[in-house]
Amino acid sequence: MDSGEQGETSKAPLNKGVSRGVSILDLILRVIAVISTLASAIAMGTTNETLPLFTPFIQFKARYSDLPALTFFVVANSIVSAYLILSLPLSIAHIIRSGAKYSRLVLIIFDAAMLALVTAASSAATAIVYLAHKGNVRANWLAICQQLDSFCERTSGSLVGSFGAMVLLILLILLSAMALARR
Amino acid sequence: MDSGEQGETSKAPLNKGVSRGVSILDLILRVIAVISTLASAIAMGTTNETLPLFTPFIQFKARYSDLPALTFFVVANSIVSAYLILSLPLSIAHIIRSGAKYSRLVLIIFDAAMLALVTAASSAATAIVYLAHKGNVRANWLAICQQLDSFCERTSGSLVGSFGAMVLLILLILLSAMALARR
Repeated sequence: MDSGEQGETSKAPLNKGVSRGVSILDLILRVIAVISTLASAIAMGTTNETLPLFTPFIQFKARYSDLPALTFFVVANSIVSAYLILSLPLSIAHIIRSGAKYSRLVLIIFDAAMLALVTAASSAATAIVYLAHKGNVRANWLAICQQLDSFCERTSGSLVGSFGAMVLLILLILLSAMALARR
Repeated sequence: MDSGEQGETSKAPLNKGVSRGVSILDLILRVIAVISTLASAIAMGTTNETLPLFTPFIQFKARYSDLPALTFFVVANSIVSAYLILSLPLSIAHIIRSGAKYSRLVLIIFDAAMLALVTAASSAATAIVYLAHKGNVRANWLAICQQLDSFCERTSGSLVGSFGAMVLLILLILLSAMALARR
């Protein structure tokens, strides 16, 4: 694995081509991550199900805003999606100027922070959605998914995009680190 | 900000000193992260509270294993802690050989994965502990912390170490990336 450390100057054109490839892959992964976080936020944000007779005295309408963890999920996915859109110009700049150093460092640190944010959001939402599906006998929390069938399906589905974005952000950090190491 | 890109060869001794400083800081942060994840896992894992008459027919004993999210918290913090201990020799090697490239790349990708793991664990546990404290009126989940006072305090407290480790791992990724960029 250490063979790449010798003769770096003689392989400059090849290295540059690979760096450009890495930068293009970075851009593609970023676009996919934008789509998946945006889809997650929209899918969760637009979920609602009205149950006319859930309790005898109120009309029950289930929305994401009823559960704080799902609200956090929508907000966090929107933030990550906005950040990823803002990072696209920088990613395009890296294709043109593949030796950039400080801008890649900036991307790595923000990508890591956004990785933490999107992971926190998807895992808090997962904990709550899991509870909605299964309930918890010891804590006496009942599963609410028998009543709220389509609500539970939509919320479960919208987790997928967020977990996808998590994996993509780990890959993006790896790509940026590889680009830094290749210089 | 781009001024560092010129005259890199002439500043080699200074750069090496800074790189060594970065590597030492990396080691210190790793040790702190080991302690905080280990403390979190132990604090959560040893929590239990017995309520003799919570319900009239069973003796209620609250443990972390009653809630899947808290079990995940203990497991994930143990894994991250074990990984961080295993990464210490590599971190020490970086102090001696500050120009290392591939081993830093390996550390960055594993640090990013462990960041995702510890964030997922702490945020899922936070969602459940928050629910235990506040309950949720819409889903008809009652707050269980009135009865389980010391259980709730211990579990809330053990979240701190995990969130600390999250911040430390973001800093570790930044330090590794900086070391790669400085080479």
